[in-house]
Amino acid sequence: MTLSEDQLLIDTDRFVFNLDQRCDILTIAFQRYMDIIFGAVKNRVSQTKSDSNRTSVFEFAITRPLRDDDVVTALHVDVKGQCMDDAYPSLKSDESYNLKINPNGFATLDANEVWGALRGLETFSQLIYTNNGGVLVINVTSITDKPRFQHRGILLDTSTHFLSVNALKKNLDLMAMNKFNVFHWHIVDDQSFPYESYTFPAMCEKSAYTMEDIYSQKDIADLIEYATLRGIRIIPEFDSPGHSLSWGPPFPGLLTKCYSAGKWDGSYGPIDPSSNTTYPFLTQFFAEISQVFEDQFIHLGGDEVSFDCWKSNPDVNAFMTRMGFPNDYSKLEEYYMTKLHTIVDSVKRNSIIWQEVFDNNVTVAANTWVEVWKGDYQKEMAAVTARGYKALLASPWYLDLISYGRDWLKYYLADPQDFNGTQAQYDLVMGGEACLWGEYVDDTNVLSRLWPRASPVAERLWSPIGTVDIQSAEMRLDEHRCRMVKRGYPAQPFNGPGFCPEEFVDK
Amino acid sequence: MTLSEDQLLIDTDRFVFNLDQRCDILTIAFQRYMDIIFGAVKNRVSQTKSDSNRTSVFEFAITRPLRDDDVVTALHVDVKGQCMDDAYPSLKSDESYNLKINPNGFATLDANEVWGALRGLETFSQLIYTNNGGVLVINVTSITDKPRFQHRGILLDTSTHFLSVNALKKNLDLMAMNKFNVFHWHIVDDQSFPYESYTFPAMCEKSAYTMEDIYSQKDIADLIEYATLRGIRIIPEFDSPGHSLSWGPPFPGLLTKCYSAGKWDGSYGPIDPSSNTTYPFLTQFFAEISQVFEDQFIHLGGDEVSFDCWKSNPDVNAFMTRMGFPNDYSKLEEYYMTKLHTIVDSVKRNSIIWQEVFDNNVTVAANTWVEVWKGDYQKEMAAVTARGYKALLASPWYLDLISYGRDWLKYYLADPQDFNGTQAQYDLVMGGEACLWGEYVDDTNVLSRLWPRASPVAERLWSPIGTVDIQSAEMRLDEHRCRMVKRGYPAQPFNGPGFCPEEFVDK
Repeated sequence: MTLSEDQLLIDTDRFVFNLDQRCDILTIAFQRYMDIIFGAVKNRVSQTKSDSNRTSVFEFAITRPLRDDDVVTALHVDVKGQCMDDAYPSLKSDESYNLKINPNGFATLDANEVWGALRGLETFSQLIYTNNGGVLVINVTSITDKPRFQHRGILLDTSTHFLSVNALKKNLDLMAMNKFNVFHWHIVDDQSFPYESYTFPAMCEKSAYTMEDIYSQKDIADLIEYATLRGIRIIPEFDSPGHSLSWGPPFPGLLTKCYSAGKWDGSYGPIDPSSNTTYPFLTQFFAEISQVFEDQFIHLGGDEVSFDCWKSNPDVNAFMTRMGFPNDYSKLEEYYMTKLHTIVDSVKRNSIIWQEVFDNNVTVAANTWVEVWKGDYQKEMAAVTARGYKALLASPWYLDLISYGRDWLKYYLADPQDFNGTQAQYDLVMGGEACLWGEYVDDTNVLSRLWPRASPVAERLWSPIGTVDIQSAEMRLDEHRCRMVKRGYPAQPFNGPGFCPEEFVDK
Repeated sequence: MTLSEDQLLIDTDRFVFNLDQRCDILTIAFQRYMDIIFGAVKNRVSQTKSDSNRTSVFEFAITRPLRDDDVVTALHVDVKGQCMDDAYPSLKSDESYNLKINPNGFATLDANEVWGALRGLETFSQLIYTNNGGVLVINVTSITDKPRFQHRGILLDTSTHFLSVNALKKNLDLMAMNKFNVFHWHIVDDQSFPYESYTFPAMCEKSAYTMEDIYSQKDIADLIEYATLRGIRIIPEFDSPGHSLSWGPPFPGLLTKCYSAGKWDGSYGPIDPSSNTTYPFLTQFFAEISQVFEDQFIHLGGDEVSFDCWKSNPDVNAFMTRMGFPNDYSKLEEYYMTKLHTIVDSVKRNSIIWQEVFDNNVTVAANTWVEVWKGDYQKEMAAVTARGYKALLASPWYLDLISYGRDWLKYYLADPQDFNGTQAQYDLVMGGEACLWGEYVDDTNVLSRLWPRASPVAERLWSPIGTVDIQSAEMRLDEHRCRMVKRGYPAQPFNGPGFCPEEFVDK
């Protein structure tokens, strides 16, 4: 990036985005960015100059003679590849772009794919600011940009507390502002099952908190479209065989019955790998999921599987003896995960799992990704990649674990490739995720708690490995927090006393 | 309190509040509680019955024959004392009330003063709920209620970050719902001076963050009226001689110049007690404050006064020698605080100070209250009351110091009278305050961070000393959180996974 001190005026009145091919994703994005760039300014002008018929900020600067060479009247967007209107972003999406604001006002955005163009549009919108004279300007700039990691995710959990579709959409807006590209949707868990399955409507009916707290098929299609338009993938997580108590009520026999003193104690444990109804159900269920969610990946969970309930259950143990692995509960887990992987594989989806499956020495398919979330993350990333698995890092970025003060510093300095390994191991690191688990989070606080605390993670996952200077990051983050606030999102103070030029005001 | 299982219908159509004297505060409160009690229901009806001209929920129950003895058609409010329309709540306000919902549907609220009637109205509104049939009901109930402590405060800080008038009003709503009765407004501090003084407009002009981030005289009058209508006092804090850097820019000479190596190093310290312009300024300033804020009390601060700058300044030291207390900086502090107390006394206001003034062995006037905020609070409360000062407890309730998990438990179990002392000492404990300092708080998160975390403090300060059972508190708090959410406030999850029957939905 080179950034000159020379300012160019943005011609608010005439400004257009130019594109040399028809492309709905970008046309819709242009409209979005017109609103973002000019919306606030137009409102301000109409407030201060309400007696005139002026509709654009530019007119009050028009008394100053304009020269052709210090005004930006267009951003010329050139996408090399063909734009497909039904395009969906993927692991292979090319998010690189070149943005040039030339001294003569000629401004260009070049990208190989629409996904790069979307990232460049966001950058362009962030480069525009209001100068001392109150008019919109942009500096002469040249940027060549691309992400360091291909998987840059935010995990939200909609089971421990429900989150509204509207809150999720605002979060997608903020992800786009921060160049995150994966929404890892931990949609169901022990506590509730808000996913409205069309194959198994009873799952929601019996296990959602209320029938208001659910995601209909329409909601999900709407969210996927909303995310796609922002170049964001949605990877759903259906965590099993643990964290699945809410799956049980509609399906007697799906969950393991836990025994004590020789009889069922009334409680349930993980999904029962020994039941002959388990796999037909999973086959039907994941067939539906692969229809509903477009992404190549499904997260299968696999974390925190307690063996105690399996150990207590005589039927499970009899099954294990029959299968030739008596008392080896890791083998039982492996049996389950292998069957599950095969099911997901048969619907042409890749799997991501939490690290315990790996930790328990369960052998999983080679193309399974492992997400690291606990323990010494350097050791764990080294171990996972040493075994040849692709890895995602989440451990240092559990943003639900709040503490007083400037916690962004520790989020900023963690790095997915900060472990002892070979280049081949480093190449297996696909990125990371900032996680906001839902125990203490719902619509009341999800956005303010997540932002701007996820922003340091965004920079870590996008910017070059050497971008670690705290002081310059602090300034950028402060400005970026206020940018989110200015666009209407409740990004909270993160760095001690201060203010934003345009504050968030409770309405 | 006795609470029967017998339910009475609330006659939504005919329900009225009856009062036997003219009283604007209560008439306005009746309107407010009509909206709170019936608003949501009416909205629901008008949505489901939009084709009719019906305006009340009751009509859809009216086909069921009503019996006189299971319907509540009125709450008869009887206030013994005369209602004064210009009344302002005070330390002496009587907040006691008796509320009876008799088996025959006759409902009465008796109070000695309007302030008790307001508390009783809130209780009445909370007793009404929607039964399984979807209609509003109340149980046969008898309540005799009064607060344990007379001072039950919330501190908000509007200097480290600005808070909008609207956010402050919503907070007053929530305080009323939780029976807090003092808004301790830490309005200015080092970082900014948002109070718009009419005597000294330059203070805001030079030291507010921006001229949007200020409280005009109109804003303040508006807030005082809003609080008064809810029986809430507003005690402003103008902290000095420390925490007052923002006071300096308009008044060269007010702040102490800090020296190093024999000359001024460019920085400032606390207010300069030796300057002959300091006290005339303070006299004028607090004369204004006593005109603007109606409350009997002004909080004078006095915390965290560093002696280093005073020590470094030759003029200050020359003054101290002249005054006969060379090198005794506690005496200098005492000199300042005594002068300040005299000024505040001359405008007929009582003072509250933070504990350090006391800790520094500064002798202050006997009627000064001491607020305890740090160290071992049991020891400090014992020491303050042993010297005969009235005391407020804040230390265990610094809600800005966030941590992961169920932190409400520790807030709930702290108690202002939990120290070794005599009855005379316990009698000097006037109450306490939950404090949300503003370093990491602004409009984006102030309400969700404060509520329901301040609610356990509210119960501690209102309810009898023996009300300490965690399990029943947990159930009440869970219900109360959802009550705040139902009324439209973003009270956050506080106790792990769960949901509210009517969730807060981001719009």
